[in-house]
Amino acid sequence: MSLDPAAERTGAQRAPTAGIVATGSELLAGRVHDANGPWLAEQLGELGIDVTHILLVGDRSDEMESALRFLAGAGVDLVVTSGGLGPTADDLTAAVVAEVTGRPLELDEHMEKVVGDIIARFADRLRWDADALAEANRKQAMVPRGATAIPPVGTAPGLSVPSGEGPHGYRPAVLVLPGPPRELRGMWDDALATAPLQALLARTAPFDETHLRLFGVPESEIAATLRAVGEHIDLAPLEITTCLRDFTLEVDLRRRPDDAAARAAHDAVVAEIDARHGRAIFSRTGETIDEILFGLLAGRTIATAESCTGGLLAGRLTAPAGASAHVQGGIVSYSNEAKEHLLGVPHDVIEAHGAVSPEAAHAMAGGAIERFGVDVAVAISGVAGPGGGTAEKPVGYVCFSVRTADGREIARDPVLPGDRGDVRERSVVLAMHLVRRVLTDR
Amino acid sequence: MSLDPAAERTGAQRAPTAGIVATGSELLAGRVHDANGPWLAEQLGELGIDVTHILLVGDRSDEMESALRFLAGAGVDLVVTSGGLGPTADDLTAAVVAEVTGRPLELDEHMEKVVGDIIARFADRLRWDADALAEANRKQAMVPRGATAIPPVGTAPGLSVPSGEGPHGYRPAVLVLPGPPRELRGMWDDALATAPLQALLARTAPFDETHLRLFGVPESEIAATLRAVGEHIDLAPLEITTCLRDFTLEVDLRRRPDDAAARAAHDAVVAEIDARHGRAIFSRTGETIDEILFGLLAGRTIATAESCTGGLLAGRLTAPAGASAHVQGGIVSYSNEAKEHLLGVPHDVIEAHGAVSPEAAHAMAGGAIERFGVDVAVAISGVAGPGGGTAEKPVGYVCFSVRTADGREIARDPVLPGDRGDVRERSVVLAMHLVRRVLTDR
Repeated sequence: MSLDPAAERTGAQRAPTAGIVATGSELLAGRVHDANGPWLAEQLGELGIDVTHILLVGDRSDEMESALRFLAGAGVDLVVTSGGLGPTADDLTAAVVAEVTGRPLELDEHMEKVVGDIIARFADRLRWDADALAEANRKQAMVPRGATAIPPVGTAPGLSVPSGEGPHGYRPAVLVLPGPPRELRGMWDDALATAPLQALLARTAPFDETHLRLFGVPESEIAATLRAVGEHIDLAPLEITTCLRDFTLEVDLRRRPDDAAARAAHDAVVAEIDARHGRAIFSRTGETIDEILFGLLAGRTIATAESCTGGLLAGRLTAPAGASAHVQGGIVSYSNEAKEHLLGVPHDVIEAHGAVSPEAAHAMAGGAIERFGVDVAVAISGVAGPGGGTAEKPVGYVCFSVRTADGREIARDPVLPGDRGDVRERSVVLAMHLVRRVLTDR
Repeated sequence: MSLDPAAERTGAQRAPTAGIVATGSELLAGRVHDANGPWLAEQLGELGIDVTHILLVGDRSDEMESALRFLAGAGVDLVVTSGGLGPTADDLTAAVVAEVTGRPLELDEHMEKVVGDIIARFADRLRWDADALAEANRKQAMVPRGATAIPPVGTAPGLSVPSGEGPHGYRPAVLVLPGPPRELRGMWDDALATAPLQALLARTAPFDETHLRLFGVPESEIAATLRAVGEHIDLAPLEITTCLRDFTLEVDLRRRPDDAAARAAHDAVVAEIDARHGRAIFSRTGETIDEILFGLLAGRTIATAESCTGGLLAGRLTAPAGASAHVQGGIVSYSNEAKEHLLGVPHDVIEAHGAVSPEAAHAMAGGAIERFGVDVAVAISGVAGPGGGTAEKPVGYVCFSVRTADGREIARDPVLPGDRGDVRERSVVLAMHLVRRVLTDR
């Protein structure tokens, strides 16, 4: 057991590593989830830089300092910080980075002017006087010696500090970015263009990646499939990530393009997943079901008839820009009266089979086709819980009907696991996959 | 600048501190957001334990070990880990904790039986033979000397390790919990009941807390208000957290009940927020707008008529269990035809004023009252963007009408900031507040 994580990662093939430090006491109160760490980790990963640590620390300078020193001790090549940049006295990241990297702060006169112009626009709202403004201004234009300032998207410039050596040097390169996610993301391309980041990127090798997306396969089945492949071929050269997100199983395979063993492992894994779960694969490029449906619906029209999902499916179908080209609308028929009056579900059907029944869902979809005059309609009626379940129709029992104006239909009535929120969200995703199947005949 | 964060927090009044380590390589790939760190931080904060660090590290033992040592160096009183517990070889947390705390692992025979019974039920799915099962079993029942095992909710027991002293001691107490959020949360109460946690909780003093919730006030205004109060009274004894979440400004005030200066600061802050932003305060107890609306709608019925929000408002109103008592349904009238045919918006109104107009929203709400026979209806029609904006009706222009069956109405037509997703989400929240105002005459 070694204290130096870098020890097992040496050699010519070692990818550069990075640690991320997000600062902000709200992150430690648990109220706000850190959005920057995961976003940065995904960006860096795609560039071939492995993120080994994400640290959330408070706003105090000693907390940032100890985090920076810890990451250097862990052997990372790059530290990315978010937050603690800004005009007020408790925005201390730049000063701490200057201290830790042994690079005195120097005024960047060009940046002073850039920041001054920006802050002037906010001056009224900040209610500061001219002296305070000038001081805030100058504070933000101070740059550690040898570092590059990154032009602000909001009010705060970022910093890119080169890797150092020697007794007072701090070995990792340091990239200092602001906390607001919109600003951080807006400055990312400029940050990558700075010399310290370019030096690091020169050492990365791009990966070959395969992104399989499966619906309807439990994670344990994929684990069993991977174990089976692993009995015949060494999977170690292949990086395999499986992740259940939005009720979709994501299997990502990453490998060095010049590694024949990784290539063989990759091909064996894909072949076995194809053989065992081929029908469940709906994307081989990482496309989401939302993106796929958006494409399939081009030139068609769709409407929804929802009960237990209460409008969430319509809300999701209308999320992408341009959805109005195919989404005509929907009816949330939460009450039985709404199902009858607004969707034309016959009273007899509800009487005989109940509002949660394949028959009612079938009639709801038919009503939506008729009322909205669309090519395809999708109906959902179920017991989301926690109340309302019976022995015959337990909580999680949900009826789906997807019908087309030309007479095709796919119907399902599974019992879905999870709590009320899970059942509703899972129903939305299942409904989208049923629409995909109707439109692709798969 | 000190390397020891504890240095500034000594004294009788110092609250115990905690660091959190979440392990799992999926957290470092950026695909999955860590749900445990924020949840644990919120729980600990409410108990009077300040979380000073949250670390996300990979699955390797050296990464967990260096994180544990770093947090001890940072002076925390408690370390909570999540993940890396389980039957497989790469679940190493218990072994690392035993190593770092200098407590050899010993078999807990009672726990061996408990875990054995649980694992037997999963045996088929894991496809393991009897020897592998017995080994996995025993591995999970190994407990560091002097520690307490916490019964599993899933398959993995937790561990509660007392604070140590001496040359080989690890000063912080360590609480080891599994990674799946459902299991971790399910074991929380048992974890708190263990001796190491009880010893820590004996040192905490409960806080007095005030939770103000404001809608329609920018964060910068509250900052200005707090600065103004701070000119007359010392705010240092009061812990103030402001946070913008779900377009709602949350202001939380926390203080020691026996601290007169904190009490004075608290009263001054509340008085000034009342004076400047009183109308914007909709909760003084931390209740969400969803909870407040749910209460106000008891004994009433409601329906929605949505265009740009595409069903998200109906989806949100139906999120709580029991919503069917008041939500009758909604119509997503994304197309003009749907507005006319399903909501009875006169063709002339759309012709003369456009589908995005106060007049159209007024007619949509009227149509929803009539079609659903409800007490109150809320209509939203707007330009969510990114396309479709004009000089007169730019992206973000959204018209709201909330009407009651007895003839009251509140109408608004603001231009909301942000991208398509922001405009839609913000519209939903604004609509909920307008319903609140109609129902409370405020």
